[in-house]
Amino acid sequence: MNFIEDIIENTKSIRPLIHNINNYVTANDCANVILACGGAPIMADDPCEVEEITAVSNALVINLGTISRSKAEAMILAGRKANELKIPVIFDPVGIGASGFRSSITAKLLKEVHFDVIKGNLTEIKTLIKWEHSSGGVDADKGDVIEESSMEQAIHIAEKVAEETDSVIVITGAIDIICSKGIVHMVRNGSKLMKRITGTGCMLSSVIGAFCGGNPSNCFEAAVTAVGAMGLCGELAENKVLKKNEGTGSFKVYLMDYMSSLQGNTLKEGIRIESK
Amino acid sequence: MNFIEDIIENTKSIRPLIHNINNYVTANDCANVILACGGAPIMADDPCEVEEITAVSNALVINLGTISRSKAEAMILAGRKANELKIPVIFDPVGIGASGFRSSITAKLLKEVHFDVIKGNLTEIKTLIKWEHSSGGVDADKGDVIEESSMEQAIHIAEKVAEETDSVIVITGAIDIICSKGIVHMVRNGSKLMKRITGTGCMLSSVIGAFCGGNPSNCFEAAVTAVGAMGLCGELAENKVLKKNEGTGSFKVYLMDYMSSLQGNTLKEGIRIESK
Amino acid sequence: MNFIEDIIENTKSIRPLIHNINNYVTANDCANVILACGGAPIMADDPCEVEEITAVSNALVINLGTISRSKAEAMILAGRKANELKIPVIFDPVGIGASGFRSSITAKLLKEVHFDVIKGNLTEIKTLIKWEHSSGGVDADKGDVIEESSMEQAIHIAEKVAEETDSVIVITGAIDIICSKGIVHMVRNGSKLMKRITGTGCMLSSVIGAFCGGNPSNCFEAAVTAVGAMGLCGELAENKVLKKNEGTGSFKVYLMDYMSSLQGNTLKEGIRIESK
Repeated sequence: MNFIEDIIENTKSIRPLIHNINNYVTANDCANVILACGGAPIMADDPCEVEEITAVSNALVINLGTISRSKAEAMILAGRKANELKIPVIFDPVGIGASGFRSSITAKLLKEVHFDVIKGNLTEIKTLIKWEHSSGGVDADKGDVIEESSMEQAIHIAEKVAEETDSVIVITGAIDIICSKGIVHMVRNGSKLMKRITGTGCMLSSVIGAFCGGNPSNCFEAAVTAVGAMGLCGELAENKVLKKNEGTGSFKVYLMDYMSSLQGNTLKEGIRIESK
Repeated sequence: MNFIEDIIENTKSIRPLIHNINNYVTANDCANVILACGGAPIMADDPCEVEEITAVSNALVINLGTISRSKAEAMILAGRKANELKIPVIFDPVGIGASGFRSSITAKLLKEVHFDVIKGNLTEIKTLIKWEHSSGGVDADKGDVIEESSMEQAIHIAEKVAEETDSVIVITGAIDIICSKGIVHMVRNGSKLMKRITGTGCMLSSVIGAFCGGNPSNCFEAAVTAVGAMGLCGELAENKVLKKNEGTGSFKVYLMDYMSSLQGNTLKEGIRIESK
Repeated sequence: MNFIEDIIENTKSIRPLIHNINNYVTANDCANVILACGGAPIMADDPCEVEEITAVSNALVINLGTISRSKAEAMILAGRKANELKIPVIFDPVGIGASGFRSSITAKLLKEVHFDVIKGNLTEIKTLIKWEHSSGGVDADKGDVIEESSMEQAIHIAEKVAEETDSVIVITGAIDIICSKGIVHMVRNGSKLMKRITGTGCMLSSVIGAFCGGNPSNCFEAAVTAVGAMGLCGELAENKVLKKNEGTGSFKVYLMDYMSSLQGNTLKEGIRIESK
């Protein structure tokens, strides 16, 4: 994976401006993680200004959490503007199966905006193409955990969704799958503690945004690097928490610490990746 | 207090989904504390989707902070749905006395929604039943501190509000009072540092929500356990901060650390509780 | 700078209520930093209630981040009420150059509300008086860094804006400039890490609000003290992070730790200040 160091270094040197239309629960963590990996965040979600802000940005990240009618309108406007200007757009369909409102906004977004990367857990990605209906909430359904035994089926789904949407598809789980047409990578980094704090999924989308902003022609590689970075930093943070007998508050702090000091060669050595 | 371990263990094993209609100031901390004690948070506040989301949740927490007209509408819809489906509803009337807007929304909520638990400081709880008018802000008024000398009067108020609302009433202060018809518990855990960070009150409501979601037939016991858990973890966090000569930033991190690793037997031993 | 200890002590003893109309990205940090320096925060942004809340507050802080039409309306109402009651008003024109929406709201605010303090980076302050157009984002443009070589010009701009707006002007940078009619102070505290986490600018505005709320007749001195406090605590936090080989997650925690335990005499000794 020789691209890893380039993806990280390009982002630090370009310092891409990342426009986030985010939920208010994890907005602070998302802004901080963008800064941690060398980008500059701007959050704006009023339809009156999102097009202008997207226009000066290097990537746009759209996150479905705490959605409102006004935000949904802003997402369409910003997404179209990004497409027009060929700025990478990342979509995180948080809790897409939780309500008809979220699924109808998603359907409209998928129709009107082309996404360079779509990231979700297996339930969210399946719901995206109406593969099946979620049981609700923002977590993956119990049957949708990606382990060795279920990996092949998850890859099959990723390939199908990548084909249908013409996007890089990232499915998160115990094993993370990153899939674009004709290419699939599986990453086995991560920590169980990442599901015990809110926002690691949203943060991943923001890191994908930062890396795509810094490497707009290499969104697949940017997504792989982001998945590896979050996973490896999660492991490092978990080790420190266990060693010091702490909990999820410290885990969150350490995760940001490691993200802010991650070097390309460290990730290149620490990533556990294979291609299909 | 033999119920304490059950309340905590049931929550961890059920992993209840907690729908929060929350303010944007403390939403992240509330989501994290729900995860810390074994629940799964979902934040949603658009009238278009709250009923659906409440319908798949195990408890609903309504918090009056950073209220808007749209959120107020969502609260009514979600609250009614929760009542219909017999899902526990927790109400945190943050700063109810700060504006006519907050008090009129509260009046409407009290009329249209039955709350299983209402939690506030003494000023908020008194304002709730128009006992008197608050001087503004989100803290208890100076005359509303619950200490040994004023405890009996606070209990009297709790009993009256519990009677009027048919809810479990939690009044927070130096001494916390938890009251349901015919039963009153006083908890003497806690730390003065809890008032020096924002959101400990909102977090308590969220923990009550998580424990009620895991123990829907025992909301009084769930509320007592939540009050004890936050208070004890506050003490542990304060001890660590003082020992390391740190400040309120670290206190917040440690509070979450202790909440995420709290065991039932630790709380059973550490809670300082008596019944009237 | 004999006023420093008074500014800090008055704030702690009065415990001013600070009404924040803030963005949702940094609202939690802003509330916590107000608490850290002895104030009490209240966040409210619905036009239905802001006038009432401002009326019982000791200062009003208006922050342009994640602006919406509804918030803009609230800002005007709250600002006018504060002026009417002679409550200090602080304005933080976050990303004012990022969109026509933000600049038109700012123009309206400047016309209808008198601000006691306006704080921004050099790009924001220049955009404020249409000195020039920003290139977008929330950071200062590359040519707008305040260093020794560019300090004189920045002071000239501060003086001009102070004259035009009749406000205390705070321009942040490697050197911070605080200017009122006939008086200019330069503060050389701070840490490069402050730009690597989100919200240090918003937090500074909130601290200015807290100190103005505690010292309503001395807004210039309050602003100087706030700039010095944030800068010095940033340095202390950076030292600790470097010593422990940590990152931006820990930096944020330590910054709050130091803010919550800062004593007047420590700041008096540690501030690096000169007047023009």
